Amino acid sequence: MNAKELRQRARNGENFTTSGLAKGNVQTNVVIIPKSQAFDFMLFCIRNPKPCPIIEVFDPGNFSSSYAKDSDIRTDVPEYKIFINGEFVEFSTDIKSIWRSDFVVFLLGCSFTFENELIKNGIELPYFSNKKNVPMFITSLDTEPVGNFSGKMVVTQRWVRKDKVVKAVQATSRYPNQHGTPIQIDNSEDIGIVDPYKPDFGDPWIPDNTKDYVPMYWACGVTPQLILQSAKMDISITHSPGKMFVTDLKDEDMAVI
Amino acid sequence: MNAKELRQRARNGENFTTSGLAKGNVQTNVVIIPKSQAFDFMLFCIRNPKPCPIIEVFDPGNFSSSYAKDSDIRTDVPEYKIFINGEFVEFSTDIKSIWRSDFVVFLLGCSFTFENELIKNGIELPYFSNKKNVPMFITSLDTEPVGNFSGKMVVTQRWVRKDKVVKAVQATSRYPNQHGTPIQIDNSEDIGIVDPYKPDFGDPWIPDNTKDYVPMYWACGVTPQLILQSAKMDISITHSPGKMFVTDLKDEDMAVI
Repeated sequence: MNAKELRQRARNGENFTTSGLAKGNVQTNVVIIPKSQAFDFMLFCIRNPKPCPIIEVFDPGNFSSSYAKDSDIRTDVPEYKIFINGEFVEFSTDIKSIWRSDFVVFLLGCSFTFENELIKNGIELPYFSNKKNVPMFITSLDTEPVGNFSGKMVVTQRWVRKDKVVKAVQATSRYPNQHGTPIQIDNSEDIGIVDPYKPDFGDPWIPDNTKDYVPMYWACGVTPQLILQSAKMDISITHSPGKMFVTDLKDEDMAVI
Repeated sequence: MNAKELRQRARNGENFTTSGLAKGNVQTNVVIIPKSQAFDFMLFCIRNPKPCPIIEVFDPGNFSSSYAKDSDIRTDVPEYKIFINGEFVEFSTDIKSIWRSDFVVFLLGCSFTFENELIKNGIELPYFSNKKNVPMFITSLDTEPVGNFSGKMVVTQRWVRKDKVVKAVQATSRYPNQHGTPIQIDNSEDIGIVDPYKPDFGDPWIPDNTKDYVPMYWACGVTPQLILQSAKMDISITHSPGKMFVTDLKDEDMAVI
C-alpha cells in the first residue's frame, strides 16, 4: 500500500495505526492550532528542534500538504485528538466540521524514519514484533520556553547492545529532522528517570541481559502534545499516538548525509 | 581577538569586516523586521532553509542573543543597512535610536563556517588572500514564496579542482545550517547563469585553468536581503555585507556529523 492509498483509507474513515505501513515514506506528527498562537509555537519548535523538528508549516487556512499529493489534513489522518482549553475532549476520524480558516498546520518529524535506519544497522527493536509501544519518559529537562509554551522534554528509550551504541549514534545523526542524535546514553537518572523500567507512556522494555545493553534516549514527538496542553489554547488538534500523517517524502529525502 | 571583544569593538563604533576574525566562531546574517511580518518571514525561512537557515529568532523586542553573552544586537554589528518601504536609505553603526519594541531579530547562517571547512579540506579560496569578495549570482531559481516574501535565489560561486568536488560536497554536508550542500555543480546555465565570470555581486573569479576546475554553487545569505526589499516593509534592517554578527557558538557546534 503506497502513501496515497493509505491517506485514502484514512479519508474513508478507517482507523488504524500507521507504524510499518508505506515503509520508506516519511510519517509526521500533526499539530493544528489557531493562527493567534502560531508565531509562538513556530518559535518554540525552532528553539526545540530535537523534540519538535519542523517538516512543514501550512499557510493559515490551508489543509493540503505540499509533500503529499491531493492530501487533505482534515481527513487523511486515521485518528485525531481534540483539545479544548488544554483539556482532551474527544477522538475523531475527521475534523472537517470543526475546521477554521485561521488554523495553522504543523507537520513535525517522527521517529519511524530513524527506526528503519536503526533496524538496517542491526539494532533490534523488539517492540515492533511484540506489538508493543516504545517506552516514553517525561524527563527533568526543561524545553526552551516561548510565550505560553513550556514544559519538560519527553524522550523515547531504546536498549542498545553495547557494541552497537556507536552505530546507533551514526544512524540517527543522518536524520536531524527526525529527532536526530540521542540526548542521553545510559545514566538515566541524569535526566530525571528514576526507574528505567517504568515508562510514563508506552510499554516497559526489559532487556534480556542488562549487562550487555545500555538505555539510549532520543527526544520524542510526544513533547509538543504535553506542551500544547499546558498552553491551554481555546482549541488545538493533534494526531492520535501511532496514527500519523503519511507524506510522499522518502526517508532518504530527509537524510543529511 | 575573541567574539566578545569583537562585539565590544563594534559597540564602540568601529566599522570593520568580520571575515577571518574570531576564527572558529559562528558568524551570522542579521535581519530585523516588525512583528507584523515576522510570522511570514519565519515561514519563508523554514520553506527556504538553504538560503535562509535559522540560527536564532529573538522574542519580539528582545535585542540580546542567547548565543552571545551580554550582546546587544542594536550596537554589536559593525555596520547596518536600513531600508524604508523596501528602499535602502542609509548605513549606520548603531540602531539604538530607531529600535522599536515590536522588532523581531533573525540570525541566519553564514558561509564563513563552511569556508573554514573547505580550506581545511585543501580547497583553495583565493578571494581571501586577494582581498576580494566571493562571486554571487542571481539565479533563475524561484524561492518558495510566503505572503509578500518572494524572489529568486542568490548563490555564491566557488571554482573547485575536479579531484576535490566530492570533498567539497562532504565538507559542506556537515553544516546544513550554514547553507549546506551545493545546489548546483557545473552547468551554470541550468540555473540561469549566462556568464560565470560576470557575477551580480562580489568580484569575478577566473580560475587559472578552467579545464581542471568546475564552478560549484551554494545558496547565499544575500537572498533574504533581496527578498526583504521586494516585500516593501515600512522598515527593515540588516547587517552590511561582510560585517556580520559574531556569536559565542563554535563552528563545530553547528556540525551534524
